[in-house]
Amino acid sequence: MPRHKGDHDARRRDVSAAVWRVLSTQGFGGLTMRAVAAEMGATTGLVTHYFGSKQELVEHALALLDERRQSRPRPEAPDGMAGLRAALADILPLTPEGAAGNRIWVGSWDAALGVPELAAGHGVRYAGARERIRHHVQVAQRQGEIPESDPDDLAASIQSFALGLIVQVLFDADAFPPERQLRLLDAFLASLEAG
Amino acid sequence: MPRHKGDHDARRRDVSAAVWRVLSTQGFGGLTMRAVAAEMGATTGLVTHYFGSKQELVEHALALLDERRQSRPRPEAPDGMAGLRAALADILPLTPEGAAGNRIWVGSWDAALGVPELAAGHGVRYAGARERIRHHVQVAQRQGEIPESDPDDLAASIQSFALGLIVQVLFDADAFPPERQLRLLDAFLASLEAG
Repeated sequence: MPRHKGDHDARRRDVSAAVWRVLSTQGFGGLTMRAVAAEMGATTGLVTHYFGSKQELVEHALALLDERRQSRPRPEAPDGMAGLRAALADILPLTPEGAAGNRIWVGSWDAALGVPELAAGHGVRYAGARERIRHHVQVAQRQGEIPESDPDDLAASIQSFALGLIVQVLFDADAFPPERQLRLLDAFLASLEAG
Repeated sequence: MPRHKGDHDARRRDVSAAVWRVLSTQGFGGLTMRAVAAEMGATTGLVTHYFGSKQELVEHALALLDERRQSRPRPEAPDGMAGLRAALADILPLTPEGAAGNRIWVGSWDAALGVPELAAGHGVRYAGARERIRHHVQVAQRQGEIPESDPDDLAASIQSFALGLIVQVLFDADAFPPERQLRLLDAFLASLEAG
């Protein structure tokens, strides 16, 4: 029955959109069946039809984060320092949408740290991100853009800088307007080039 | 009635200890009156006697974080690069206790971002931390340990590195044993000295 299937998928997308809106305003701490239902103007029963437990709701939210991240167009820049700068600028909260997405990611850390499998999942996600950074680092080293040093350590250090900057921006947007975020990024990248 | 007052304070300390244990295992997402009561083997009624709402419980947890941070002995090191290194090493999750405390801080971000006043409070906390870093930066610049550059920007960059490293360690402790954390810290500080 394709029509019924289509309805189901459409409704599931509505639920997902409501989950996203709850997360961006109330975070994972506010993500309850009741909050999602209220956001949709629906009954809690409708939401429990899609998610059997709070844990399933949290897992769905994390899957949504992955999905949105993967569906974003990747910045076009050649591998090496240019690609690294583009990739980092792409994840910084330079726009309201970027801030909302980052607010949800940062918020997910508490939920993930409370459940070993979810924490392991985040561990894998961040290891993957370091891997992508390391690729740029190795190309940059081959091209002589930055001096030789352990590329794994350098990737971890670069990711540290980016994640920590995101956190500070979220708590003090006035102190970190977009131009300052980019200035900090450029100064950090320049320090890598100096070695 | 001093005896009664003493009982009250002792019981309040018991509640605080239970809040701390709940946070270190379940995070802010798991911080409910019921969870704190279960941790104490007490009734939910007892906990609601101390906290009128979930929001009050979260505020108490954040106050506890502040209290514990302020009561920790400060590392003894002269101002400048030595003091900066000691201060950063002091906040990294190098021990199980350090990891537990950081897990609670990182977990607090979701709860704080959901409530404007709490987010503003965290903004003030992190601005204060940048201020302390900036002091070391300025002394280091005066002493010629690092080249001149905007000390506010450098402090923000240093804090970014530290916060982001903490997050990565929490999600992948095996990839970041204490000696690697310190190696990354030293390499980062060396890059500041190179300018």
